[in-house]
Amino acid sequence: MKTFSVEEITEIVGGMLTKAQDAKITQIAPPLLSDENTLALALGEEEIANLANSKAKAALVPLGVQIDGLTTIEVERPRLAMMKLLNLFYIPPVVNKDIHPTAVVDPSAKLGQGVCIGPNVVVSPNAEIGDNTKILANSYIGSNVKIGTNCFFHPGVNVGDRVKVGNNVILHHGVSLGADGFSFVTENPDNIEQARKDGVIKETEQKHVIYKIPSIGAVVIGNNVEIGANAAIDRGTIENTVIGDDTKIDDLVMIGHNCKIGKGCLIISQVGIAGSCVIGDRVVIAGQAGLADHLEIGSDTIIAAKAGVSKSFPERSIVVGIPAMPRKDFIKQLKTMKDAQELIGKFKKYEPMLSAFEEAHAE
Amino acid sequence: MKTFSVEEITEIVGGMLTKAQDAKITQIAPPLLSDENTLALALGEEEIANLANSKAKAALVPLGVQIDGLTTIEVERPRLAMMKLLNLFYIPPVVNKDIHPTAVVDPSAKLGQGVCIGPNVVVSPNAEIGDNTKILANSYIGSNVKIGTNCFFHPGVNVGDRVKVGNNVILHHGVSLGADGFSFVTENPDNIEQARKDGVIKETEQKHVIYKIPSIGAVVIGNNVEIGANAAIDRGTIENTVIGDDTKIDDLVMIGHNCKIGKGCLIISQVGIAGSCVIGDRVVIAGQAGLADHLEIGSDTIIAAKAGVSKSFPERSIVVGIPAMPRKDFIKQLKTMKDAQELIGKFKKYEPMLSAFEEAHAE
Amino acid sequence: MKTFSVEEITEIVGGMLTKAQDAKITQIAPPLLSDENTLALALGEEEIANLANSKAKAALVPLGVQIDGLTTIEVERPRLAMMKLLNLFYIPPVVNKDIHPTAVVDPSAKLGQGVCIGPNVVVSPNAEIGDNTKILANSYIGSNVKIGTNCFFHPGVNVGDRVKVGNNVILHHGVSLGADGFSFVTENPDNIEQARKDGVIKETEQKHVIYKIPSIGAVVIGNNVEIGANAAIDRGTIENTVIGDDTKIDDLVMIGHNCKIGKGCLIISQVGIAGSCVIGDRVVIAGQAGLADHLEIGSDTIIAAKAGVSKSFPERSIVVGIPAMPRKDFIKQLKTMKDAQELIGKFKKYEPMLSAFEEAHAE
Repeated sequence: MKTFSVEEITEIVGGMLTKAQDAKITQIAPPLLSDENTLALALGEEEIANLANSKAKAALVPLGVQIDGLTTIEVERPRLAMMKLLNLFYIPPVVNKDIHPTAVVDPSAKLGQGVCIGPNVVVSPNAEIGDNTKILANSYIGSNVKIGTNCFFHPGVNVGDRVKVGNNVILHHGVSLGADGFSFVTENPDNIEQARKDGVIKETEQKHVIYKIPSIGAVVIGNNVEIGANAAIDRGTIENTVIGDDTKIDDLVMIGHNCKIGKGCLIISQVGIAGSCVIGDRVVIAGQAGLADHLEIGSDTIIAAKAGVSKSFPERSIVVGIPAMPRKDFIKQLKTMKDAQELIGKFKKYEPMLSAFEEAHAE
Repeated sequence: MKTFSVEEITEIVGGMLTKAQDAKITQIAPPLLSDENTLALALGEEEIANLANSKAKAALVPLGVQIDGLTTIEVERPRLAMMKLLNLFYIPPVVNKDIHPTAVVDPSAKLGQGVCIGPNVVVSPNAEIGDNTKILANSYIGSNVKIGTNCFFHPGVNVGDRVKVGNNVILHHGVSLGADGFSFVTENPDNIEQARKDGVIKETEQKHVIYKIPSIGAVVIGNNVEIGANAAIDRGTIENTVIGDDTKIDDLVMIGHNCKIGKGCLIISQVGIAGSCVIGDRVVIAGQAGLADHLEIGSDTIIAAKAGVSKSFPERSIVVGIPAMPRKDFIKQLKTMKDAQELIGKFKKYEPMLSAFEEAHAE
Repeated sequence: MKTFSVEEITEIVGGMLTKAQDAKITQIAPPLLSDENTLALALGEEEIANLANSKAKAALVPLGVQIDGLTTIEVERPRLAMMKLLNLFYIPPVVNKDIHPTAVVDPSAKLGQGVCIGPNVVVSPNAEIGDNTKILANSYIGSNVKIGTNCFFHPGVNVGDRVKVGNNVILHHGVSLGADGFSFVTENPDNIEQARKDGVIKETEQKHVIYKIPSIGAVVIGNNVEIGANAAIDRGTIENTVIGDDTKIDDLVMIGHNCKIGKGCLIISQVGIAGSCVIGDRVVIAGQAGLADHLEIGSDTIIAAKAGVSKSFPERSIVVGIPAMPRKDFIKQLKTMKDAQELIGKFKKYEPMLSAFEEAHAE
């Protein structure tokens, strides 16, 4: 069991200690789940109030919060401090050493120093895996895949042929990299092409063959990228689908073929980005938002949860709604709806008068 | 082939038999797909009408429905009767006995009586699996995982380290339990924190490092829970993510870190619940609805399909829309929209008159 | 390395060659990524403009586009030509021959000529796999499954018992076919039944048991179907869930129990179709749209991205919005919103006058 003094913890989080004491800190927890060897985390108002009923003798609190009779470590940025503490008490996933005997590693694959390959993992011909990368059970690495150093692939990921993955990349359960793009063509214009052109669907050829447009591109994942469980990133048609360095992608996200996602983006759960979008750096796309194909989204833009983005937006936009619009327009629209409710009542009041007046003057 | 008399079936479903006959019932089907040994299921109006063209000699019908010349079993609650009949004719998935020779079971794992482990399943160190639990092919059970009795895990599920699963739990293809929470922090405030504070995105630090906040919590699944294909439930940051007893979760649902989901909830396909939500008991969340983080939803609430829930709601709410509001407000809003269309026409009619009148009085 | 003359390529795409030359074409690429042995693809305006700065000596262009000093192959339908060229340069996934020694194939399974079974694939009792079908690593084929000829299953797919798959079917990473339908019943009416009936949620039975309605149907997939990564198609309750020939389904789509999807449909990423829907032929359902259960959608209908479809629509509809409505109604609604904003301003201008007038006449 790891044990720390309050002084050690104060130093680690870069905080300010009030009222030092002898406590041995062996874990962190919310105030109500703390015992006397716990550092209680009281980052918000509710948790700070809960300190009154906590068994903890020491607490991490925001700057300026002091509690009578309690050892407090004040920090300016509590989430940052929490991150540091969690790293302290983190239990890494249990992984087998080296190459598990049930793994199927092609003799032509090149594995770096300290690589761990889990049970039933398949590493295909000419794949390259960098130093200290760990690939857990039942994962599939296609042929000619290149994976950098210090990556961690959780069980059950599928990486298609020719995909490239940078360093320090984390893939969670069931991630798919490099499935084919969703791209088809018919000999003659199909319903969608017609509707785009004419606005209506005319008599259509009933038996047109739908040809698959093959994807000869791959997926390229930058450094320090994390991708959530069962997310899917499709390969490009000719060029690659690209995810920039430091971008974090949540569970069940779908990124279409040819997309170029910038650096340091946060793409939250169940977002869908259709093919050939170009997304800038540090863009935040909140849960369940969707982007139509071929859009350009400027850097530092925030797209709200559930937004339906059907056109491009410049950098530093904040966009909301279906169809998505700048937040100020959305707020105006909500106000219009509220005003309209009020207005309808008033108008109904005046209407008989207006009607009578009109009639009188029409005579 | 299982065969039942109409009397036996009547007893099983607790129904009322009219006009007994000798038929041997060997299957159940909709009226138009029934033969003379089929019990036709006519639960709704369309299917009742179809009995006229059915080859079936016997039918399950709602109370009060009698068809000339047909043996009918009337029941008060047809779906309940259907459930009982389906259990009668159910064909359980084919499973190997005991531990398949290709399974990789760590010697430290504890397996109960009658446990079945499929081909290529990995059971990690110190995992515990209760009596009669079946884990099918290519699934992964992490270290220190505890699974109860009589569970059924379909092929390809991934259960991360330290996750706890109750009794009688069903996991479908590709379920992910215990991927890391989507939780990050930067040294200084990032775009989202700025936008929340100021409403605009200012000059931002271009190169801030995005630190991963590790998840040291796990996932705890109650008894009698069912989780659909490729759904993902992330582990908690410090505490566990919790799914209450009897809660049923559909395919491709995402439940974020730290969520506490109550008992007997129904969470339909593609719903997303962001981190740290607290959901009561018997809450129904319909397809593709999304919940922002840190919300509290009271028991017996119904959240409509596609709702975008951005604030908490008390128990027994029925909420609809993006942003989600009580259903009565949503209906009012739809009415406002309709009224506004009418009003605009009327106003345009009166406008010249008002304009003329104003002008006249201004002089 | 494959090499083609411009004449050969012209013939393959059925185009019109201007200014033949000796170039050996070894690849295709966008203009800015082309070298002198590349056929530059300039299908749209931006790429046509980029030809000025390209190293390519030859380009594929739309009919009527000619560029001074460049060999051009003009085609009437550039996407169709691109498809043909991509097939020319396509690199098929690397697959092992025959049955990999780590595959677990039940002796009762019947495998056709030229079948390839990858590492750790499980083929259950009585499964049948047609000629030249390839099933890649870590996939699961349940008992009594029937798969046609020339199918290609990417790694990690899960196919439940009794599912039937046609010929030339492509399944991508992690596809789930035949998970149980999401179908439950309680002894007495639950919250949803109450809310449907009464519009409010009354005192409910707190402890009702939720019974699972078993699925005894299966899934039937037609010929030439493609299904994207981590998509899920659930089995039917009594009848089968059916996907018609030539239908293409994108990543993370969910199709509920009992659905009958027609032929030649395109179902884009993250669409959800609830149970028992009947969808016609050549229907297009764009990304993140959702359909409630038991709907009928006529052939040749287009459902817009993010639409929330709560009622049936006839053939050749174009539907948009939440709740979904014909596109012309949706456009009218957007216009109403715009008009209302204007109107509110005007009304506020006239209101004091109306109020004064009313007061004067009331006296």
